[in-house]
Amino acid sequence: MTARIVRVLDTFDVDRTVQTPSEIARRAELPTSTAHRIVAELAASGVLERDDDGRVRLGMRLWELALRGSRALRLRQAALPHMARVQSIVREHTQLAVLERDEALFLERLSHPDAGANITRVAGRLPLHASSSGLVLLAYADPEVRERILARPLSPLTRETTTDPDDLRHLLAGIRRSGHVVAPGSVEAVSTGIAVPIRESGGVIAALSVVLPRTTSPEATLTALTALRDAAAAITATLRALP
Amino acid sequence: MTARIVRVLDTFDVDRTVQTPSEIARRAELPTSTAHRIVAELAASGVLERDDDGRVRLGMRLWELALRGSRALRLRQAALPHMARVQSIVREHTQLAVLERDEALFLERLSHPDAGANITRVAGRLPLHASSSGLVLLAYADPEVRERILARPLSPLTRETTTDPDDLRHLLAGIRRSGHVVAPGSVEAVSTGIAVPIRESGGVIAALSVVLPRTTSPEATLTALTALRDAAAAITATLRALP
Repeated sequence: MTARIVRVLDTFDVDRTVQTPSEIARRAELPTSTAHRIVAELAASGVLERDDDGRVRLGMRLWELALRGSRALRLRQAALPHMARVQSIVREHTQLAVLERDEALFLERLSHPDAGANITRVAGRLPLHASSSGLVLLAYADPEVRERILARPLSPLTRETTTDPDDLRHLLAGIRRSGHVVAPGSVEAVSTGIAVPIRESGGVIAALSVVLPRTTSPEATLTALTALRDAAAAITATLRALP
Repeated sequence: MTARIVRVLDTFDVDRTVQTPSEIARRAELPTSTAHRIVAELAASGVLERDDDGRVRLGMRLWELALRGSRALRLRQAALPHMARVQSIVREHTQLAVLERDEALFLERLSHPDAGANITRVAGRLPLHASSSGLVLLAYADPEVRERILARPLSPLTRETTTDPDDLRHLLAGIRRSGHVVAPGSVEAVSTGIAVPIRESGGVIAALSVVLPRTTSPEATLTALTALRDAAAAITATLRALP
């Protein structure tokens, strides 16, 4: 039952916020009667909300249940003021990501209105081997997780995405030595991602990153990297002070 | 089944992010065996995550499912840059709230490190008749919802909370005329809440508010109100431009 509820919720997306129960049934690959029953139960609990015309969307109640006691909220609240400081320096995109089921899941994104290209979305995902955040998360992941991911066929997002396992191992070892990655063109040809690890209690729990135009000068890139390192250290200190 | 899953998720809170299945059973008022089974199912789906010692917490997967297609995320992403501008002016607390099941549910809060008292939390709730955000949401709510709430016995949070239905009707009519509320001491004696409505497609969909120290000068209060009005109009424009 729980798995079917998750499948129903999983049919909603940033581009698909309102659906009919029949559309949900088709996308969740459930019998129509089953989908209708689950939708009715979820609507009764406020997890889904019905429009006047019978279409449904995710309820504010689900948002509340998911956030109120979550690590995501705690981390994001600790990080937000420090991300804002980075963002005031780079004036492009500043992002926070965690490792979730073998992908980089983005918890927050701040973007300047005139900023360049960036496909990242809050609550969106990117492959670990392509995004700068993902590379940092992969570099510091359990060796077991890392080798499981390197053992898979890895798809490039651009011509510059590193997909060869040995090249990736070399890249990840470099990230562990330097404590950062600069990844030009690995997600989009026109952008460079820069990411650093965020630590708590000794371990790496998240990645902080910026996305800059590919044309950014080396000096501005270094300024961004310094801002990221300072912010990551400040986030660690903030987390330490939390109950 | 869905209702019991919601009851399990509802036992988690900002002060209670990690629990044993037995604690969950007790708080959700479910038989221990039922709670254990639901927890196991939710953990298998990633909705809950297990610690090494068998305790569970809300999973990043739940956060992702709840946010990815939600109105809360859309509204909050549209509002955040404009909230940041208000916050850069008031340097105290800036908040975004919606009406959810007869209470004000807070979607976002930005706070200055040195800001004064504020009990609001992201994903937390406050009574509609006490908080400045709640008063704005109540002022513009369906008359049916408004009368249902005014018909209840209303508890004061401080000596200054308005609880008399006729006084509240008068206050709410004033909010609809002026388009804002200044509510000194109605949530905490030492703070003043100021709130304005955020409109979309003609209707009021949220409230934008600041919390200032009670000692704030009339000039600074007016500056904050102007910043709130400008931001609310800008959020409406941003929402209109979204797909």
